[in-house]
Amino acid sequence: MIRVVKIGGNVVDSPALLAQFCTDFSALAGPKVLVHGGGVKAGAIQRALGQEPVRIEGRRVTDAATLEVVVMAYAGWCNKDIVARLQACGCNALGLAGCDGGVITAPKRPPKTLSDGVTQVDFGFVGDVTPASVDAEFLRQLLDAGLVPVLCAINHDGHGQLLNTNADTVASCVAAALGAELIYCFEKAGVLRDAADGSSVIPRISAADFARLRADGTVSDGMLPKLETAFRALEDGAPRVVVCHAANLLNPTSGTVLTLNGE
Amino acid sequence: MIRVVKIGGNVVDSPALLAQFCTDFSALAGPKVLVHGGGVKAGAIQRALGQEPVRIEGRRVTDAATLEVVVMAYAGWCNKDIVARLQACGCNALGLAGCDGGVITAPKRPPKTLSDGVTQVDFGFVGDVTPASVDAEFLRQLLDAGLVPVLCAINHDGHGQLLNTNADTVASCVAAALGAELIYCFEKAGVLRDAADGSSVIPRISAADFARLRADGTVSDGMLPKLETAFRALEDGAPRVVVCHAANLLNPTSGTVLTLNGE
Repeated sequence: MIRVVKIGGNVVDSPALLAQFCTDFSALAGPKVLVHGGGVKAGAIQRALGQEPVRIEGRRVTDAATLEVVVMAYAGWCNKDIVARLQACGCNALGLAGCDGGVITAPKRPPKTLSDGVTQVDFGFVGDVTPASVDAEFLRQLLDAGLVPVLCAINHDGHGQLLNTNADTVASCVAAALGAELIYCFEKAGVLRDAADGSSVIPRISAADFARLRADGTVSDGMLPKLETAFRALEDGAPRVVVCHAANLLNPTSGTVLTLNGE
Repeated sequence: MIRVVKIGGNVVDSPALLAQFCTDFSALAGPKVLVHGGGVKAGAIQRALGQEPVRIEGRRVTDAATLEVVVMAYAGWCNKDIVARLQACGCNALGLAGCDGGVITAPKRPPKTLSDGVTQVDFGFVGDVTPASVDAEFLRQLLDAGLVPVLCAINHDGHGQLLNTNADTVASCVAAALGAELIYCFEKAGVLRDAADGSSVIPRISAADFARLRADGTVSDGMLPKLETAFRALEDGAPRVVVCHAANLLNPTSGTVLTLNGE
């Protein structure tokens, strides 16, 4: 069984967490893929460069200057730092953006209509990744060769344009395309029944459970899109999703297991 | 015969030259590797971030802040921009820093003694690449799979540390390790007999010729280290080196051919 592991900015930004995670990820047996977010580095560089983030109705616009920074931060520093750390742990990591070997090719997001129902806004150099965007055969060739693909969320449109995409979505689509288990590593022990109680981990969630947890407000805020993305991976071919603390990668049963039917 | 093509900052920095080069490189038949320099982007970002380049006796010191910028610029923006452009031309490019798949692992440069003969100076996160640094077998596997490796000059020490290296040296060592023809593409038509006369291209240079041209001052300044690196590639296993204009990649006989024995 192939495993796709996703780490977010909270792990990438913490030298201690990242060092521990790289050791653990290297020790994880079997074929595996890592997908990483970019953390706060891109924002810090933007501020240092005096770039003003542009937002329309709360959503960030990726203009040319922003794209350059996110490509530098995610595909440059974060990706190569992680790959070099994994190599030092004996893990034969290979860093990839979507353009590399054409591993992920996604169309640029079309303009969206604003809340006035009329105004069309182009959110810039952003791509929408689906499982069909992923060259699963190429990833399998790399895995068969003993390599460990390390994907950042920078992709391309196949016509020479780099695009910023969402790392949770990239991980979900890669897992679906590979029929792989998906492990979301983050800073909590799993999906919590009570956000204030770190020990209130819900051990298993089915699609029916998720509908109830969403309806009664147990799952809300940032966890909602993460679980929506996770259930989309299940619907698209991933056999199961685990949501766990980054420090528990080697003990993922400590977290929450998501399956369509609860088994 | 494998070909290793090197482009410098003058090509990377010019959108028109780079677009033409990517079209030509994609059309080049046979197995091939691209090595690229970083151009002025890293320096521009450093200035925008208010970083002061540190130099000791004219030589740049790569401190942690500088390393972060060159990794972002070379392995991030330049590498992914070139790969996305090549993919759009139908060339199945795969961007690599030395850490990726452990393709180039180089030791950090030891401290150097200054001209006073006493003071030891650490020039920072800089690596010294040799042909033995290159995993030629891995590069051959990628070539056999129909991929086109695109290497930036960011490498690693195998212990988790990224290192800045020289792109001409990387190209030379990769060509030597692969027994490949090396093509240095730059902004002149070849090695010139008269630097002021762009048409005075010397068609062939042997090792003996090079000793004469160096002694009589025909080859000097920036061309001298480039040709030294080229002849080292020949001594280490590259069958020949071509120095030509980036716009003449598909017509390399227009440039200067270097071989050990002049044949």
